[in-house]
Amino acid sequence: MTVSTSERLAQLRELMRKPENNVDTYVVPSEDQHGSEYIASCDERRAWISGFNGSAGCAIITLDKALMFTDGRYFLQASEQMDQNWELMKQGLPGIPTWQDYLTTNLPASARIGIDPTLITEKDFKLLSSSKESEKPEAQDTNTLVPITTNLVDVIWASDRPPRPKNAVAPLEEKYSGESVSSKLHRLASAVSSNTPKPRALVLTALDDIAWLFNLRGSDIAYNPVFFSYAVVHFHSSEESDNLKKPRAVLFLQRNAIEHGDLKSVLGPQIEIRPYEDIWEYLKDLGNQLRSISAEKSQEKLVLIPDKASFAVAQAVGEDIINVLPSPITVLKAIKNSTELEGFRQSHIRDGIALARYFSWLEEKLTEEGIKLTEWEGAEQLEKFRSELPLFKGLSFDTISSTGPNGAIIHYSPDPKDCAVIERDQIYLCDSGAQFLDGTTDVTRTWHFGTPTDEEKRTATRVLQGHIAIDSAIFPNGTTGALLLDSWARKALWKDGLDFRHGTGHGVGHYLNVHEGPHGIGTRITANASPLKAGMIVTNEPGYYADGKYGVRIENVLIIKEVETPWNFGDKGFLGFECVTMCPIQTKLVDQNLISIDEKLWLNDYNRKVWEKISPLLKNDERALKWLEKECQPI
Amino acid sequence: MTVSTSERLAQLRELMRKPENNVDTYVVPSEDQHGSEYIASCDERRAWISGFNGSAGCAIITLDKALMFTDGRYFLQASEQMDQNWELMKQGLPGIPTWQDYLTTNLPASARIGIDPTLITEKDFKLLSSSKESEKPEAQDTNTLVPITTNLVDVIWASDRPPRPKNAVAPLEEKYSGESVSSKLHRLASAVSSNTPKPRALVLTALDDIAWLFNLRGSDIAYNPVFFSYAVVHFHSSEESDNLKKPRAVLFLQRNAIEHGDLKSVLGPQIEIRPYEDIWEYLKDLGNQLRSISAEKSQEKLVLIPDKASFAVAQAVGEDIINVLPSPITVLKAIKNSTELEGFRQSHIRDGIALARYFSWLEEKLTEEGIKLTEWEGAEQLEKFRSELPLFKGLSFDTISSTGPNGAIIHYSPDPKDCAVIERDQIYLCDSGAQFLDGTTDVTRTWHFGTPTDEEKRTATRVLQGHIAIDSAIFPNGTTGALLLDSWARKALWKDGLDFRHGTGHGVGHYLNVHEGPHGIGTRITANASPLKAGMIVTNEPGYYADGKYGVRIENVLIIKEVETPWNFGDKGFLGFECVTMCPIQTKLVDQNLISIDEKLWLNDYNRKVWEKISPLLKNDERALKWLEKECQPI
Repeated sequence: MTVSTSERLAQLRELMRKPENNVDTYVVPSEDQHGSEYIASCDERRAWISGFNGSAGCAIITLDKALMFTDGRYFLQASEQMDQNWELMKQGLPGIPTWQDYLTTNLPASARIGIDPTLITEKDFKLLSSSKESEKPEAQDTNTLVPITTNLVDVIWASDRPPRPKNAVAPLEEKYSGESVSSKLHRLASAVSSNTPKPRALVLTALDDIAWLFNLRGSDIAYNPVFFSYAVVHFHSSEESDNLKKPRAVLFLQRNAIEHGDLKSVLGPQIEIRPYEDIWEYLKDLGNQLRSISAEKSQEKLVLIPDKASFAVAQAVGEDIINVLPSPITVLKAIKNSTELEGFRQSHIRDGIALARYFSWLEEKLTEEGIKLTEWEGAEQLEKFRSELPLFKGLSFDTISSTGPNGAIIHYSPDPKDCAVIERDQIYLCDSGAQFLDGTTDVTRTWHFGTPTDEEKRTATRVLQGHIAIDSAIFPNGTTGALLLDSWARKALWKDGLDFRHGTGHGVGHYLNVHEGPHGIGTRITANASPLKAGMIVTNEPGYYADGKYGVRIENVLIIKEVETPWNFGDKGFLGFECVTMCPIQTKLVDQNLISIDEKLWLNDYNRKVWEKISPLLKNDERALKWLEKECQPI
Repeated sequence: MTVSTSERLAQLRELMRKPENNVDTYVVPSEDQHGSEYIASCDERRAWISGFNGSAGCAIITLDKALMFTDGRYFLQASEQMDQNWELMKQGLPGIPTWQDYLTTNLPASARIGIDPTLITEKDFKLLSSSKESEKPEAQDTNTLVPITTNLVDVIWASDRPPRPKNAVAPLEEKYSGESVSSKLHRLASAVSSNTPKPRALVLTALDDIAWLFNLRGSDIAYNPVFFSYAVVHFHSSEESDNLKKPRAVLFLQRNAIEHGDLKSVLGPQIEIRPYEDIWEYLKDLGNQLRSISAEKSQEKLVLIPDKASFAVAQAVGEDIINVLPSPITVLKAIKNSTELEGFRQSHIRDGIALARYFSWLEEKLTEEGIKLTEWEGAEQLEKFRSELPLFKGLSFDTISSTGPNGAIIHYSPDPKDCAVIERDQIYLCDSGAQFLDGTTDVTRTWHFGTPTDEEKRTATRVLQGHIAIDSAIFPNGTTGALLLDSWARKALWKDGLDFRHGTGHGVGHYLNVHEGPHGIGTRITANASPLKAGMIVTNEPGYYADGKYGVRIENVLIIKEVETPWNFGDKGFLGFECVTMCPIQTKLVDQNLISIDEKLWLNDYNRKVWEKISPLLKNDERALKWLEKECQPI
């Protein structure tokens, strides 16, 4: 089912030609103005203008062409969803430029390229501008990147466009967050004080950064308990006396949230609340104020801007007094305090109840009762069990409930109207998670409800061996996940010529986004840059995917912790993991000839721990308790 | 014992002031004009001018200062060897610039810096020149890097300076090299033909590149069977007819080598021999000839220059027609042919005879006879046993024969006049290797001739576990040693909080340099850039060093080979290792409680293979045979 985009494109081109815009090319990226991974439907501009609603893609519309740049995951979906107006640019195939390369090299020398400056980072904007200059240094008439403040898609979309969510914002009690806002502001001020020159302010634009700093949670974006907002944190000048040195902050919220009475009293006098829309004027005023400080105090003019903030934010403050850097909140937020860590443990035990209830229910339906259930119905039942748990606030992402070949589609999620029936005799892969007030869960288990083939057992065992290698790893403080640990998850798979095409693990927020930086275990640059540190959370999720047949993945959530070792080489300390996920790993899928004694001990020990933690909590579900006992039997 | 450098420095400064030079700073690097790792004594200019003869360091002499830049390995040695004229710049300590940074930022704006253009790479020369420009873009009067063709140190050194070695150059028969020069030239031509534009010539400056390409070996530099030389390979132009398309080459050799009668007949008509000194005139003529080609054929003008070639080489040809890139010989040379691989196997079996004879001899002397032997005497005896082997041509590096605490000094080698007595009750670490006509060896073993402590056993076992992890690794084709394998060698050590501060492995030449690129197993950038490929050689040498107490290292030489796996993910194939080193690993140093069944099987299997290969060859040495039998007993 394609959407007709002729009318939309005609209107857009009319706007592009208007004298106040005067551009011959317009870029529609996927991002929202906060650089969010998940976006609200009002921000799905690229999907609306093109009909293609995959999670990654960039539309470039010229006066006579409409191009969609996307990657291999979405070639099929994009070509099915887009009408004849659109040309699909298959990024990654030979000869196909990226959208950035297309802008810099494939357009006429005099092209004027319009873009909404709130939807592109400062770095990307500059990169595109400067690479255009360097491509054609001799040309008088070079391409120009034109920031257009009014989003042209929004103008056409108009009344059809869903309103921006303005849901209530609620404080997260200190018994869950473990640290007051005032203490967080204080630690933030210390963290940034090592910057030279010492900054006077920090602008926050990432929604999870803001939610964490102010101990607030919302529900404006699906699965992410965040709310639309900006914030500016002010640090003291060197002249202010000590008792004035407490940092203060301004939080920009949508009106609904502001009117929610108790926020002000919770946040205290350090935090001022202003309307969401006022951020732009505020940033301009901030820039002008700092600029007016006398020249002798030039070191007091600095404003820190996170590298994921938009070009519009950087422009509003002014390029002359900003320093663009990775958000200093990212590392503070990634290292969980003891309350958050205990919350992770407790929420994962609770989550384990729902998992045991669901998997035992599913097994009974499929095997004893022979009932036909779709993947979607399975996911619904799991959500139902989770929703009965204390402190439950919602799912942390779309449940991947997949049977047989669908398990090999890494980013699969069942369509309620059209999905497969779960087959007893095929591997069932379920990747799911929940948001609780005290933590966020993300767990994958792979089950076979009949008799697995030798191949299924062998490959599932290789995945398990990779999982165990990560879980039992000990490594020097300062190690990055990419360089040193990623290959440990693959070692056993490689012995059989197997591998998987995704990272081994990602950070997880505390009752926040299920994907959280800056660290990870993988081979990508991002996972490389940030060392693993005690108190961080990371998933451990090696897999194997047999296209058209089945998928295997075993995913647990791990706390990174300091470990005692007999020696301490280089005095830097050593780190290891504590697993908090509490769901049995199916021994039926283990090829016992393949695993070592140590691996067998690990597996039995893990399932025993699950039994000890979860069985006392299943008193009201006889089926789940019996199932858990069976699945936790040592091999 | 310091050398007085006052007179030398005074003379150097006089030369610097002369109008034809007119520099106020002079740089004396460690390198020779071929970028060799080991250099001849006539090229030890930095050692002669300063008195400091460590392997790494750069001297910067201004009209009133003499600075020596070196790294942590040499702080003590340099400060002991240099007189009062010299100031030691401890690179790596806070606030101490590198010699490059010193040149670009610490000298007056108008400084004129002299350097011998044959002793600095084109890239480094340009980097120093351009960074100076960008540091002070506004200054009229910037530093200038002045290439001075006459080496000023050589002028002063004059008659004292040892002559440049001009030893005989001998062909390496095809039964050892496995490939004719003509075939190598042909493959080289194919390899470079993918460059655009297609190159007309390649200049070779690395001595091992030239030795490999022309199947020649020499003895101008200790331990490296190479000879002073340059070479230019000419590729056909597109107009030449097919029967003329064979590449031809010019080899520049010192007179002695040229007069060695049979070289010309061996090399055949494709190779012209010219005097070593004529390279500069030849490169200039080559540049001028290509430049005279009409403009329409501009794509036919290209000369390839290896990135390790000197600035002088690049300048002689002319910057306008060169392309600087990693030497295309490096990868060709690194992938050994089947004759070379079989030579590696055979030479390592022979080497195993000498090792068994030496270690059994040493054990008897120390334990039964209670004789006092120095580390140097041990090394001498090992060399004597090796020198009795067929095809032996010399050692491949200075033998590390070290007892107790000396074993913890990674780059130790015993001083014949002043070294320790080998202690029966301390760990003895011996790292040694030989050059044979059919291969190069490099092997480390760690022995205890008395009763090891629990700590010694535990740490030695951790090292062994790392060694086994590498030896039994299977990994996807295309894997770089750094990213994926290096941590496997450290995993068992990390479990106990241990580690080692060197790479896990390096490439090895075939009857060539014992350190050979481009690949390796380590965390340095160089090891990162080059994937491991079937046919390459790499060492496997994890270690542990207890400062002041003992060192442990187990080093074998491995052939990288394709392996069969049940699956073949991504159709890229999988690689593994074949170990060629044949010397038992001491089981006395193994803590059996620490190792897995698989590791025990590996160890017993390895020692059994050694017994099978070496025992039939020890008929004339009863002691060695008995020792080998004892050491190869399964545990």
